Amino acid sequence: MSSRVRIGMIGGGQGAFIGAVHRIALRMDNKFDLVAGCFGRDPENTKLTGSELGIDPARCYDTWQQMIETEASLPESERIEAISIVTPNHVHHGPTCSALRAGFHVICDKPLCISAEEAQEMHAAVKETGKVFALTHNYSASPMVREARERVLAGELGQIRKIYVEYLQGWLSDKLEESGQKQADWRTDPKRSGPVGALGDIGTHAHQLLEFITGDQVESVFAVLNTFVDGRALDDDDMILFKMAGGSTGTLCSSQVCFGRENGLKIRIFGTQGALEWDQEHPNDLKLTAEDGVTRNLRTATGAVGEASGSLTRTPAGHPEGYLEAFANIYTNFAAAVRNESSSIDRPFPDIEDGVRGVQFIGAALESNEIQSWVKMPAEER
Amino acid sequence: MSSRVRIGMIGGGQGAFIGAVHRIALRMDNKFDLVAGCFGRDPENTKLTGSELGIDPARCYDTWQQMIETEASLPESERIEAISIVTPNHVHHGPTCSALRAGFHVICDKPLCISAEEAQEMHAAVKETGKVFALTHNYSASPMVREARERVLAGELGQIRKIYVEYLQGWLSDKLEESGQKQADWRTDPKRSGPVGALGDIGTHAHQLLEFITGDQVESVFAVLNTFVDGRALDDDDMILFKMAGGSTGTLCSSQVCFGRENGLKIRIFGTQGALEWDQEHPNDLKLTAEDGVTRNLRTATGAVGEASGSLTRTPAGHPEGYLEAFANIYTNFAAAVRNESSSIDRPFPDIEDGVRGVQFIGAALESNEIQSWVKMPAEER
Amino acid sequence: MSSRVRIGMIGGGQGAFIGAVHRIALRMDNKFDLVAGCFGRDPENTKLTGSELGIDPARCYDTWQQMIETEASLPESERIEAISIVTPNHVHHGPTCSALRAGFHVICDKPLCISAEEAQEMHAAVKETGKVFALTHNYSASPMVREARERVLAGELGQIRKIYVEYLQGWLSDKLEESGQKQADWRTDPKRSGPVGALGDIGTHAHQLLEFITGDQVESVFAVLNTFVDGRALDDDDMILFKMAGGSTGTLCSSQVCFGRENGLKIRIFGTQGALEWDQEHPNDLKLTAEDGVTRNLRTATGAVGEASGSLTRTPAGHPEGYLEAFANIYTNFAAAVRNESSSIDRPFPDIEDGVRGVQFIGAALESNEIQSWVKMPAEER
Amino acid sequence: MSSRVRIGMIGGGQGAFIGAVHRIALRMDNKFDLVAGCFGRDPENTKLTGSELGIDPARCYDTWQQMIETEASLPESERIEAISIVTPNHVHHGPTCSALRAGFHVICDKPLCISAEEAQEMHAAVKETGKVFALTHNYSASPMVREARERVLAGELGQIRKIYVEYLQGWLSDKLEESGQKQADWRTDPKRSGPVGALGDIGTHAHQLLEFITGDQVESVFAVLNTFVDGRALDDDDMILFKMAGGSTGTLCSSQVCFGRENGLKIRIFGTQGALEWDQEHPNDLKLTAEDGVTRNLRTATGAVGEASGSLTRTPAGHPEGYLEAFANIYTNFAAAVRNESSSIDRPFPDIEDGVRGVQFIGAALESNEIQSWVKMPAEER
Repeated sequence: MSSRVRIGMIGGGQGAFIGAVHRIALRMDNKFDLVAGCFGRDPENTKLTGSELGIDPARCYDTWQQMIETEASLPESERIEAISIVTPNHVHHGPTCSALRAGFHVICDKPLCISAEEAQEMHAAVKETGKVFALTHNYSASPMVREARERVLAGELGQIRKIYVEYLQGWLSDKLEESGQKQADWRTDPKRSGPVGALGDIGTHAHQLLEFITGDQVESVFAVLNTFVDGRALDDDDMILFKMAGGSTGTLCSSQVCFGRENGLKIRIFGTQGALEWDQEHPNDLKLTAEDGVTRNLRTATGAVGEASGSLTRTPAGHPEGYLEAFANIYTNFAAAVRNESSSIDRPFPDIEDGVRGVQFIGAALESNEIQSWVKMPAEER
Repeated sequence: MSSRVRIGMIGGGQGAFIGAVHRIALRMDNKFDLVAGCFGRDPENTKLTGSELGIDPARCYDTWQQMIETEASLPESERIEAISIVTPNHVHHGPTCSALRAGFHVICDKPLCISAEEAQEMHAAVKETGKVFALTHNYSASPMVREARERVLAGELGQIRKIYVEYLQGWLSDKLEESGQKQADWRTDPKRSGPVGALGDIGTHAHQLLEFITGDQVESVFAVLNTFVDGRALDDDDMILFKMAGGSTGTLCSSQVCFGRENGLKIRIFGTQGALEWDQEHPNDLKLTAEDGVTRNLRTATGAVGEASGSLTRTPAGHPEGYLEAFANIYTNFAAAVRNESSSIDRPFPDIEDGVRGVQFIGAALESNEIQSWVKMPAEER
Repeated sequence: MSSRVRIGMIGGGQGAFIGAVHRIALRMDNKFDLVAGCFGRDPENTKLTGSELGIDPARCYDTWQQMIETEASLPESERIEAISIVTPNHVHHGPTCSALRAGFHVICDKPLCISAEEAQEMHAAVKETGKVFALTHNYSASPMVREARERVLAGELGQIRKIYVEYLQGWLSDKLEESGQKQADWRTDPKRSGPVGALGDIGTHAHQLLEFITGDQVESVFAVLNTFVDGRALDDDDMILFKMAGGSTGTLCSSQVCFGRENGLKIRIFGTQGALEWDQEHPNDLKLTAEDGVTRNLRTATGAVGEASGSLTRTPAGHPEGYLEAFANIYTNFAAAVRNESSSIDRPFPDIEDGVRGVQFIGAALESNEIQSWVKMPAEER
Repeated sequence: MSSRVRIGMIGGGQGAFIGAVHRIALRMDNKFDLVAGCFGRDPENTKLTGSELGIDPARCYDTWQQMIETEASLPESERIEAISIVTPNHVHHGPTCSALRAGFHVICDKPLCISAEEAQEMHAAVKETGKVFALTHNYSASPMVREARERVLAGELGQIRKIYVEYLQGWLSDKLEESGQKQADWRTDPKRSGPVGALGDIGTHAHQLLEFITGDQVESVFAVLNTFVDGRALDDDDMILFKMAGGSTGTLCSSQVCFGRENGLKIRIFGTQGALEWDQEHPNDLKLTAEDGVTRNLRTATGAVGEASGSLTRTPAGHPEGYLEAFANIYTNFAAAVRNESSSIDRPFPDIEDGVRGVQFIGAALESNEIQSWVKMPAEER
């Protein structure tokens, strides 16, 4: 008998991008059976997607509300145990709260939601139900990001002074949303994306990454949100100065109009006695400048990395793992939490606190951009 | 109803490496159900592995012969359709021939087998049964390798003059086989690995890659096979000069004693009007020197690559795919062939001819090493 | 008979760094004879340095005032024609003005000087005397920087949107000035360095580079100047947001406490149809993302670069030139101007306007840092 | 009074490449005065070149014989002390022997000469006269090559097993010699280049580099010399297997038809407990894989490198030095030897033994290519 977690999916039908990623991620380590879904607002889309996935048509639901209600009524041994939410930002809050309160564990795409109020309600729902909640800030599940965190927290860099993090893309250099490209369409639409564009889509990844690796918190921000493409309603470029609670300072740049850049998430951290650099487009490398001033290239799955990093890899050194494998790490650690297995690593996946922080970060940046002054963020509640 | 291919596996139990890789690969694109297996010579191993995989214990078989026989007797709608063979080299020939003749499609790890005789029998079995046979020379399924092949075959480099291919590892720099490490153990044992060590394990990958990309054939070789680690029975280092039928020349170096190297498979091809370079440790990059003399970095999933390459990717540009995804491409294209779907690309997976060539290459290199003269290879029969 | 320019030097004695660089630079292309000098405040230092350099002791002067006066009184065919000023920042203004007014051409190290008043006086002296004045913003004389400028000005990137420039060093991570290290000593001393530390030493290089390549002007800045090392009197780290007159925005980070970084001057420019990236630690590469979205690596001295870039190289492609050669380019083009030869390139060396801009940039950043608001820079007077 | 070495030059007139390089190299560190020359066979060329260089017309000689004879007759305080020979290969032997026997020190471009007989005579002339003789295998004077040598000789890599060295260029991919390009013209002409083309021009650099770094000797070679361009009289591509006296093996590839490659001299060395990699196109990096399996990037002029390497640099870390600086190192160390100053490093410049080895290497490769068998090289006489 399989001990795979039965899971349903909301979103991810035809034309979507991230749904397929989530599905590969959940299959990769054989920890889930995807047995139900509501893959889009159009029931035809759901039927088609469900059929392609070999899902019982009876468990392909017209609405996510129906899915939650019906599944909750199935026998315990049959009904789904968890729900994966891969919809645009404005449809994170509703399904998450409903699912949690109906007894399902939830794994949700980022950003958490589109307002501070939503974030607080989602936080409350997680805390009250005690269900497992994971947010797919996938980059933080990359083995060398984990290695970086371990080393920073162990004090290997000394006291952190400088953090430069950037997430540069170029795919929205033109007004792609006018072409009907679905990804561009909703991300540039305030109704679906929320009050920010690039900042929510990728800036929050950069923010989560920097707090995750350093174990420190952004204390205040000075933000400039730009819109370069005429007629676009949301920011497509951001540049943010920040100060950390621990005394370091740095820059966070997120942009979707950096012509030719693909998915350039990169972080550099400098301390009093060492430095680290990680670039998600070459995720198996972690550049460490040690106290001797010499830069080493630490590599995934080698003897140079610790157990925590090692627990997030599947193949020997030199066999590159990438985006999908990091994504799968979140799913696999989420499954373990659902099964109540203890984790060998701390913070095995991004959680509701990460989500709330992200929304607070967006809020602070928006305010700073408005008044062009430094704005404080709340201290983390973790 | 799912149209996934029902597959069984031979090999890949506890302590194995490549079996787990094959299983991730077959799950990745949701084209298979792994429903039967004989995961090792020890039935306990098979039971344990089967249980972990959630496979019906009734279909966890004590011997591969039993698996083939029993599965063949099940109703057509229930029995496996294909068998994945992930055993050490000396157990490729037997299961493959039996499986094919029992009506199963076969996907087998490389090298094909350990002698020219075995290779001929396997070739005959494939031809006679008409079943689909795939050999997992996984690197050739990497999107940018496909892109390289497309461009070379289209004449973009002009006439090929030089090919440098190397596959350098360092993991056998010490006598790891004495530590009981299972991968080292069988690879250095002539009974299980066959007459060569490094040359079969990785040199054949390099050979297959160069013939696949260039569409040309190695015509003759001058080979030196070295054993650097005392007491090791097989070569752990090879250096080979070769001449191609098309007039180019080059070097092929495969080594497992290059201290610190991980999985350094790299190929460089120079023609009269262009050049290409691919390094499997950074598989999403393909360096193309065009006729203008300027080197470009072609990247996976961008507008710069053709449809063939694009058909082998799952994520947008900048979202790195790696070793497992390339491996999955072979499984996915194998599934399509099993389902008799037409392929949009030529040679969608390495096949029996690749396997026969590899064994011939080993044979020629062994002979050349013995007599220290150039030795001709047979012309390809494809 | 040699047509080499007779030159004298102020500064650059024992313990200095940049003086030796200037001397190599002036020798490299055989355009100068160094025949006089006042190499330090200590006459012994001057004597010793002069002797090592084979300079006539009669032309090794105790003070720079003496050198200017005495040389000016020599017969025209004998006296120096130009003066190289390689002293700490606070001794740029005096010698420059005196030298110009005594009829000498001047080549001076950067930054121009330590106050806006000094800058204006120097500017006036240049304009009034009509003598040649060059400022050694050496990086802008690197061949691939010239290539970048040519391509941006030709519109190859379309309209510029984003500029990220950084100059990160780590050598002042500790309080090196306490060790007696001469370079650290004066650079962290407000009396000699002026009102800023890192910003003047390296930030001005970054600023000059970005204006030189883009042909655009910084319009306003928001600056944070940090001092990380306890007890240091000047900034050792800066982070600056800027807006350009042409509509682009960006970040300029200069730091001397980025542990392990050597001399990390790097600029990235993104336009509506292309992008460029240059890193001075690998100065022979220029990464160009063309309109097709593909990134090329343009290389020094290849057919891919234009005549302007070519005019700044001495060796064929693949023979790396570096820091000293770029420095020499300024000297060589300065010599040509002294000889009144026409230049094949525009702005063949950084001049008084570059110097004034740099001082204005420092002023604006200082004010912004003080009031934590955006501060405008004057429009360039060129 | 200057203590600069008075030097004359043979070769290096209009249209030459390497002469200008030698002149920059001799100027860089201010150790020479170039006061005489015979820059070409055409006296007009010599006059023009001499005039451009500011050399006294009386010391611009019509023939090199005349220069040696006349200069030798000048008063000791006036006459040249050393001669730099930068002619094509066939004019190395004559001037070197004459110059040495006339009492001049000699610095000569590589390869030493065009036959074993010439090499022996030159060797004898050096030994008999006791004069200083340097051969400009410039790459071996790169700081990080010195660092590599120090570390290998100190046993840091353990016992060396594998050496891969390559020198790949593409500039002769077409029949450039037909265009009148002077460099291509003589290099492909057996009368001037000697019995080999690419092998002498660049293969000998690769050979010298590998013996210099490892301190070991090539014992035997198996060589294939190819000519890819129709009608070319000499090899334009070589691939050589070699065995070292110390037990390691490797490949040496030199080619001038690798399309798009600029000046790709690269060496990788693998030992039992470490590895090194150096690439002359990025000469300030030395990749060291230490016993912990982690690859470090050692950088010029940092605390990570030893005094020997440090003695070959002029600028601080991160200020790239390149081809010309390495070349200058040879001149500067040659000047020190001429002045009879003791050197802080062993083998401060390539000498007559390097030259003889190079000619022997060419001889062995030619013979091996002819008979397609392994050919032994003599043991080094050093």
